[in-house]
Amino acid sequence: MTTPDQAPARRDRPRIDLGPLRASGAGGLPIDRMDDDEAGVFALVDQVRRIRALTTGAVLDTDLEPLTERLRDIADELEAASAGPERRQAVTWSTGDYIDNCPILGRANVLAPPVEFDRLPDGTLRGETTLGLEYQGPPACVHGGVVALLFDVVLGRANFHTGQTGMTVYLDVDYRSPTPILEPIVVTGRQVRVDGRKVWAQGAIHAGDRLCATAEGLFVMPGDLLVENRRRLSGG
Amino acid sequence: MTTPDQAPARRDRPRIDLGPLRASGAGGLPIDRMDDDEAGVFALVDQVRRIRALTTGAVLDTDLEPLTERLRDIADELEAASAGPERRQAVTWSTGDYIDNCPILGRANVLAPPVEFDRLPDGTLRGETTLGLEYQGPPACVHGGVVALLFDVVLGRANFHTGQTGMTVYLDVDYRSPTPILEPIVVTGRQVRVDGRKVWAQGAIHAGDRLCATAEGLFVMPGDLLVENRRRLSGG
Repeated sequence: MTTPDQAPARRDRPRIDLGPLRASGAGGLPIDRMDDDEAGVFALVDQVRRIRALTTGAVLDTDLEPLTERLRDIADELEAASAGPERRQAVTWSTGDYIDNCPILGRANVLAPPVEFDRLPDGTLRGETTLGLEYQGPPACVHGGVVALLFDVVLGRANFHTGQTGMTVYLDVDYRSPTPILEPIVVTGRQVRVDGRKVWAQGAIHAGDRLCATAEGLFVMPGDLLVENRRRLSGG
Repeated sequence: MTTPDQAPARRDRPRIDLGPLRASGAGGLPIDRMDDDEAGVFALVDQVRRIRALTTGAVLDTDLEPLTERLRDIADELEAASAGPERRQAVTWSTGDYIDNCPILGRANVLAPPVEFDRLPDGTLRGETTLGLEYQGPPACVHGGVVALLFDVVLGRANFHTGQTGMTVYLDVDYRSPTPILEPIVVTGRQVRVDGRKVWAQGAIHAGDRLCATAEGLFVMPGDLLVENRRRLSGG
């Protein structure tokens, strides 16, 4: 424990321009959509999501042991058929498949709800989703960290669709009222400023008309880092 | 896009006391551990996690359709045996089962890695984990939003174990260098100040000795909100 004079004080918070981040934005066009895949990974993950939704706060009136053994067999078969993580990581970056694998948007990612965003005429992204028990923090509320994750994704994609994106340098989230689980919420985000390789973006989450949370992030084009990673992934 | 004079400026960042948040802390005792469960949900989720780990960036040399059908059968059986989400939500809060279901710590939650924390003699929490492709943001890096989620959890639990916790009011995360996937990382967090119902906590993530990210959060005991939610859940 620090003494009081070393302690953090509440600093200035971001001034969020809520006008364009309203919940009721209309006229958007779908972005980042994934077609059904021939390989069938999306269809497989859809079934895993149904299982995922029932294990958190599980109240299951059945013997789980035989079901566990059947899942073990499926996992064994998939492991035997799978490439290793290095090869798979290269795949996620080699063919524009990033979105498929995103932890919030990705139809191939078991972690993802997945959320779908539309892009409004002013560049604001807007997505509706309803999150289940597996995203719970406080009772009946979306976990504060999941709120932050939603923001990092919507701000990043809002930047991407302007043509100038980057890695997160900071992300400041303000929790203004509880974000509910098991009810529709609206996630919005937009880029608000560009200065060389730096871009700023802001976002909001609403439940109906109620403002639940806001966020501001600073993102910087990583330059060397991405070049370095891509060379490494390609074995260069 | 706002004009420059309306634009956000880079505000002061939290002053993080990194001394107690070093990666190499020793002498900790395990906290928040979950015993193997009789009902077998943890064992079932372990198998779902094996499947989860292979669908992101999937390179699977097998016909997925029959595997998808077998997963569908399991999901059908679990759905038929499951209580509804309201009943299950009440369960997550009725018997101290919160940790089992946390999206980072919870052995019953398919989203969770899960991470395990030790508590050091000075109250700092310290956990090591290695995150797979499903947690990826930029190439070879943990997603910035997942970094924020790790922080919200470690700060919240650090508060809990001092005896004074609360809901997140703000969470400010600074990304200082890439947080790697597929390599061990160390997550630390501790409470740094209490002022009535307000508590502040700070955290860090390291990869080896390299500092990847820091965070500060303000948390407030919600009082009425929790009372309200508990009454609603109990049907009162």
